[in-house]
Amino acid sequence: MKKDIDALMAARNLDALLVTGGAPHNPAMYYFTGGGHISHADLIKRRGAEPVLFFNSMERDEAAKTGLPTRNLADYRLQDLLKATDGNLLQATILRYQKMFQDLEISAGRVAIYGKADIGSAHAIFSGLAEALPGLIVVGEMDDTVLLQAMATKDAAEVERIRKMGQVTTSVVGEVADYLTTRRVQGDVLFESDERPLTIGAVKRRINLWLMERGAENPEDTIFAIGRDAGVPHSAGTPEDILRLGQTIVFDIYPCEAGGGYFYDFTRTWCLGYAPAEAQALYADVRSVYELIMAELQMGGSCPDYQRRTCELFEARGHPTVQSNPQTEEGYVHSLGHGVGLNIHERPWFRINAVPADTLQPGAVVTIEPGLYYPERGLGVRLEDTVWVRLDGQMEILAEFPLDLVLPMRDGR
Amino acid sequence: MKKDIDALMAARNLDALLVTGGAPHNPAMYYFTGGGHISHADLIKRRGAEPVLFFNSMERDEAAKTGLPTRNLADYRLQDLLKATDGNLLQATILRYQKMFQDLEISAGRVAIYGKADIGSAHAIFSGLAEALPGLIVVGEMDDTVLLQAMATKDAAEVERIRKMGQVTTSVVGEVADYLTTRRVQGDVLFESDERPLTIGAVKRRINLWLMERGAENPEDTIFAIGRDAGVPHSAGTPEDILRLGQTIVFDIYPCEAGGGYFYDFTRTWCLGYAPAEAQALYADVRSVYELIMAELQMGGSCPDYQRRTCELFEARGHPTVQSNPQTEEGYVHSLGHGVGLNIHERPWFRINAVPADTLQPGAVVTIEPGLYYPERGLGVRLEDTVWVRLDGQMEILAEFPLDLVLPMRDGR
Repeated sequence: MKKDIDALMAARNLDALLVTGGAPHNPAMYYFTGGGHISHADLIKRRGAEPVLFFNSMERDEAAKTGLPTRNLADYRLQDLLKATDGNLLQATILRYQKMFQDLEISAGRVAIYGKADIGSAHAIFSGLAEALPGLIVVGEMDDTVLLQAMATKDAAEVERIRKMGQVTTSVVGEVADYLTTRRVQGDVLFESDERPLTIGAVKRRINLWLMERGAENPEDTIFAIGRDAGVPHSAGTPEDILRLGQTIVFDIYPCEAGGGYFYDFTRTWCLGYAPAEAQALYADVRSVYELIMAELQMGGSCPDYQRRTCELFEARGHPTVQSNPQTEEGYVHSLGHGVGLNIHERPWFRINAVPADTLQPGAVVTIEPGLYYPERGLGVRLEDTVWVRLDGQMEILAEFPLDLVLPMRDGR
Repeated sequence: MKKDIDALMAARNLDALLVTGGAPHNPAMYYFTGGGHISHADLIKRRGAEPVLFFNSMERDEAAKTGLPTRNLADYRLQDLLKATDGNLLQATILRYQKMFQDLEISAGRVAIYGKADIGSAHAIFSGLAEALPGLIVVGEMDDTVLLQAMATKDAAEVERIRKMGQVTTSVVGEVADYLTTRRVQGDVLFESDERPLTIGAVKRRINLWLMERGAENPEDTIFAIGRDAGVPHSAGTPEDILRLGQTIVFDIYPCEAGGGYFYDFTRTWCLGYAPAEAQALYADVRSVYELIMAELQMGGSCPDYQRRTCELFEARGHPTVQSNPQTEEGYVHSLGHGVGLNIHERPWFRINAVPADTLQPGAVVTIEPGLYYPERGLGVRLEDTVWVRLDGQMEILAEFPLDLVLPMRDGR
């Protein structure tokens, strides 16, 4: 949680953090500002002190709303710095950062940098800054970063935002189920209108619209895949594919708050009208593993151990897994889940080789998403819910929705 | 244009470029791949050779569609590299890049890095790579980069994509005009339904929907601002504000291709029903400057000179400008335009202090957007079109739309 940042900085001997970029779709900045229409800013946090937000003067109102101590970037007079450097934007920018650090009385120490931005510019600026302030050491962290460790557990306000996105998600999933089950069917084909068969593309356009109406966006698309595509875990679906009865549909939806905030992550596998025996059998295996693992989750439990256990359970049911064969493209081919927050994928990791090995700490919000895939047989099944590890140690699914495989068609089929 | 990249690299003594990240909303990668559902990749271009795309095996089909020579990242066996580094993802990633460079027979030289990604990870990886390959010099470029210089002029295929987005944009603008002018009016207030006054927020939701229906997205929002907000160039508008007759509305819309591709940029200023004398006078000044500057644009002309000329023209009409007072918040407060492409703002720059000073080269696609702002009087006017500098030296507005200030209400007001 945010309150752990100073301790995490101390453990890594970091004197300050610097975050750059806008708030939307930039988790490191969003984490500190809580969102807002901030298109560009810098934020510097000294260990033990509140973070200071350096804002563009046109965004002064948005900056004030964050409640953070602020400074106006205009006061650093880039125009004058450009004059002093013959118009060299890089040198002027380095000078500006130098002054910003001086104003916070940071002239030396280890400073870690974060934010989604152009890596070339950042490399030029921060290498230049380290040269200009010889006592300053610029630190880049990867994967096991202070911020990803802090973000791995959520405070109450963050959990409520994720829960609200969960409600948006399940509400849209309900709309999709209603829409599909009330289509006219001819042969085994669903129709969008009198003449036009219903395609994956048409369903996805409705999903986008329903998300937008509820204040959510869909920056990483939605997986709505049938047939062979359903057997490939990351295939998003082919827009021209036509919906038919009795095919497995993998529907994995992971929207975030409009303006690039907190995500939710959710998957169901559906067959419209009826399910072939092969799909039923696969579904039964996934569902039993889903239920066993859900029942076994415990506060403090090792995430990679749950992944190993999932492999064990699938192997006992006769499926290849990444444990028996790391290159397998059939059976259980991915990891059990991941943290969800401002990143759709974040710590804790369930991968067996993640360093350090994560555990289910109170405040963690994780997906549990066992699945089985047989692309050559045109089959895939995945079930996924997002679970909060409550402070009392209980596991809570943040948005409940039926797990059913078969969606009966309303016309009685 | 893309064909200039080798010459630009030679002029800067660069031996290779490395681009990282996905294609959507990552101009450097999109530029080489032409788009596609590529969520993560690396691309390395040696000077004089075709760029090579290193793809994730799950995205092999999308990678193949780019037509570039490709390599599968899976062949570098990150799992084995993680074992060799005790699970250290950073060290394993550095080793992988080392092997990628070796496979392209690059072991030394100057390599410039590009792409929108986490700057902390990039700093760790590329500093580590430079240590691991002592002959390799990692170069960060800012603003005046090889890629922004190449992108500053567009080839025919790029112009057609921008033109298509222009058609989408003006089509949506037409829908907005139709919608507004057919609302019921009571007093001076427009109504959305029998009971509900029409708000900025409601108009923006329709804009988003109409863009989406036409295969566009709106990653940076839309400016639809009335009253005081119209007087502040970057205010996006207050969602709760109610639309009334006779107020100036600044409508600045800059969508891009869905999936994060080419942008278009367009502004009109409207008064519904009628325009007060004050707004008419301001509009007349902006329109005359717009028309004079449009007529004066010439292939090879200096962009900062057009900015100076715009200031001169506005000053002759009695308005303060950034030339007479760089800090002014009234009058003409921004620059005349900018390039448009995979970035909504890119070279050529019209800022007087940009280095180097850009000129209107054949193939450039730029906005021309003079405006006047008086926030305390609740007034702002801007007119903007996107212009292509054709190879024959003619200027062509890529999507025409009437410049009118007053939109007459259809009920006869």
